[in-house]
Amino acid sequence: MTFTLPPVEPLDGDACAAARAHHAQLTKPAGSLGQLEALGVQLCGIARECPPPIPTRPAVAVFAADHGVARAGVTPWPQEITAQMVANFGRGGAAINALARQVGAVVRVVDVGVATPIDPSVEVVRRPVRQGTADLSTRAAMTKDEAADALSVGVAIARELIEEGHDVLVTGEMGIGNTTASAAIISAFTGVDAAEATGRGTGIDDAMLAHKTTVVRNAVARTEGIADPAAVLAEVGGLEIAALAGFVLAGVAARVPVIVDGVIACAATLVADALAPTVRDLVIAGHRSSEPGATVALHHLGLRPLLDLDLRLGEGTGACLAVPIVQAAARVMREMATFDQL
Amino acid sequence: MTFTLPPVEPLDGDACAAARAHHAQLTKPAGSLGQLEALGVQLCGIARECPPPIPTRPAVAVFAADHGVARAGVTPWPQEITAQMVANFGRGGAAINALARQVGAVVRVVDVGVATPIDPSVEVVRRPVRQGTADLSTRAAMTKDEAADALSVGVAIARELIEEGHDVLVTGEMGIGNTTASAAIISAFTGVDAAEATGRGTGIDDAMLAHKTTVVRNAVARTEGIADPAAVLAEVGGLEIAALAGFVLAGVAARVPVIVDGVIACAATLVADALAPTVRDLVIAGHRSSEPGATVALHHLGLRPLLDLDLRLGEGTGACLAVPIVQAAARVMREMATFDQL
Repeated sequence: MTFTLPPVEPLDGDACAAARAHHAQLTKPAGSLGQLEALGVQLCGIARECPPPIPTRPAVAVFAADHGVARAGVTPWPQEITAQMVANFGRGGAAINALARQVGAVVRVVDVGVATPIDPSVEVVRRPVRQGTADLSTRAAMTKDEAADALSVGVAIARELIEEGHDVLVTGEMGIGNTTASAAIISAFTGVDAAEATGRGTGIDDAMLAHKTTVVRNAVARTEGIADPAAVLAEVGGLEIAALAGFVLAGVAARVPVIVDGVIACAATLVADALAPTVRDLVIAGHRSSEPGATVALHHLGLRPLLDLDLRLGEGTGACLAVPIVQAAARVMREMATFDQL
Repeated sequence: MTFTLPPVEPLDGDACAAARAHHAQLTKPAGSLGQLEALGVQLCGIARECPPPIPTRPAVAVFAADHGVARAGVTPWPQEITAQMVANFGRGGAAINALARQVGAVVRVVDVGVATPIDPSVEVVRRPVRQGTADLSTRAAMTKDEAADALSVGVAIARELIEEGHDVLVTGEMGIGNTTASAAIISAFTGVDAAEATGRGTGIDDAMLAHKTTVVRNAVARTEGIADPAAVLAEVGGLEIAALAGFVLAGVAARVPVIVDGVIACAATLVADALAPTVRDLVIAGHRSSEPGATVALHHLGLRPLLDLDLRLGEGTGACLAVPIVQAAARVMREMATFDQL
């Protein structure tokens, strides 16, 4: 499989201008809906129409994969947890399942490279590229062909969900060790030092954080001078991060609102934006993860998140919570009276 | 009518402890749901049970009233806008109507003292205490009896909504001039200078802001030495602020989650908390209004808002957007698997 970049076009300027003019006529003081107004303008620019459609069929794609670096002392969790959590997603018992039910979203779980066998009785889309990455602390996480394959899985899943009628996409992921790969991606694509991009993930002590930061710094050093974003992704990334990057690209190319979750999704969005530099204008940052790399990536992309609730779980949980806000931003533009109707 | 304080009891400590223990067993790293976990603990403490019920029937009460101070040069909007917006609420064309539909909430509009006649064809609960307050820049806004009557209207509306089966209450309001009264309440109850509590409301220029601040400072000076919270409310408050205070008190007394909106609702919550000092532990701050007095009041009450979207519209809009987050906090506690189920 090779990766074909979906054609990403910029926000529609005419629709954005129409949105600003429309907001000025609605029965409220100018600007009083704050970030909801900016989001409404963006939704018009994505949909190329004003008012924008209210998305009613959200879908969360949870891409799961393992990381060789998980065995290099960067996480206290055993790698088997990835497969166990995938089964938990399939049975509906994880946080993302509860939050998806809350906002009326379907959850599509995709095995893009889990190392441990997954309970065959659970419903999971099985598209493994390989059984987990190599250990990025010592060598390239994957080949460029494998990265292309994982990107293509993400593109395919986004297109399938849109084909099924889903009109707002939420990024989700699971993979023990993936905050290490994400920190490396974030450091490599933004230029910040590893210490700024690396955090405690699911909760590690000072000694493990120091080791993790060194692992990230050394891995990023190998990417110096590599100009091709996909090659950087292959060197220090992860299979689910690659899939998420493809998912984001295909979603924004199809002019569907894509809500980006926490630090893993932010890393994937950096890759997507490096491959197609208008991605940053088209995605919606669902929340600010408490993982420090998320803030680095959001700042680099110029994105202001909708929520800031100290979440650091991933799975798509923070972005899922932002779905009603996205719907609300569209709804006020469609349903509010104008001053001349008073 | 006189005002009888509803009996407000503290959070249930046993239920809060059970909630913390329950969260530690759910399939996620400890603490990784951040503020959603703290909110879940609070919901258990309110409901006196763990896990807490998921509220499914939200109601927004929009209390509307006019302010004599609106004619004292503190706002560019004519007082007639209050009645026009009440009619807009009744017809479903305001921002709060669109947002309430988004979260499945009913909107109950209550005239507690609108000065201009309201279109008789629109559906509004008519409980006027008087036709707007007196001008607080020159005299007491209302008598203590009138403040008691307005508080009682708020209590009655909360009880009616709960009786009808609503299980989460959202505070809303409308009243041209009410950011001036709210700033005075906030300055009087927190002790901050008028300059810190007074903002641009719906959007005023520097000269009007300076005048508004002076009006607030002079009015607050008249409250010095007054110990009775209801007397301070009568001197510098508003009829809808009093009603909101009663609404908050009756809601928390009935052990129903009450989501507080922006600066007006924060001012009302200060009054409610002064009357019954555990109110601050029982209410949920829906969002941080961009009006500076809101942050002063939230800080004084020790409340961390769920959303921070630069909203400054009132009506209950910010708190309404927080409803799905409150539902989500309860839902994860009821629906997530525990580690021993993996």
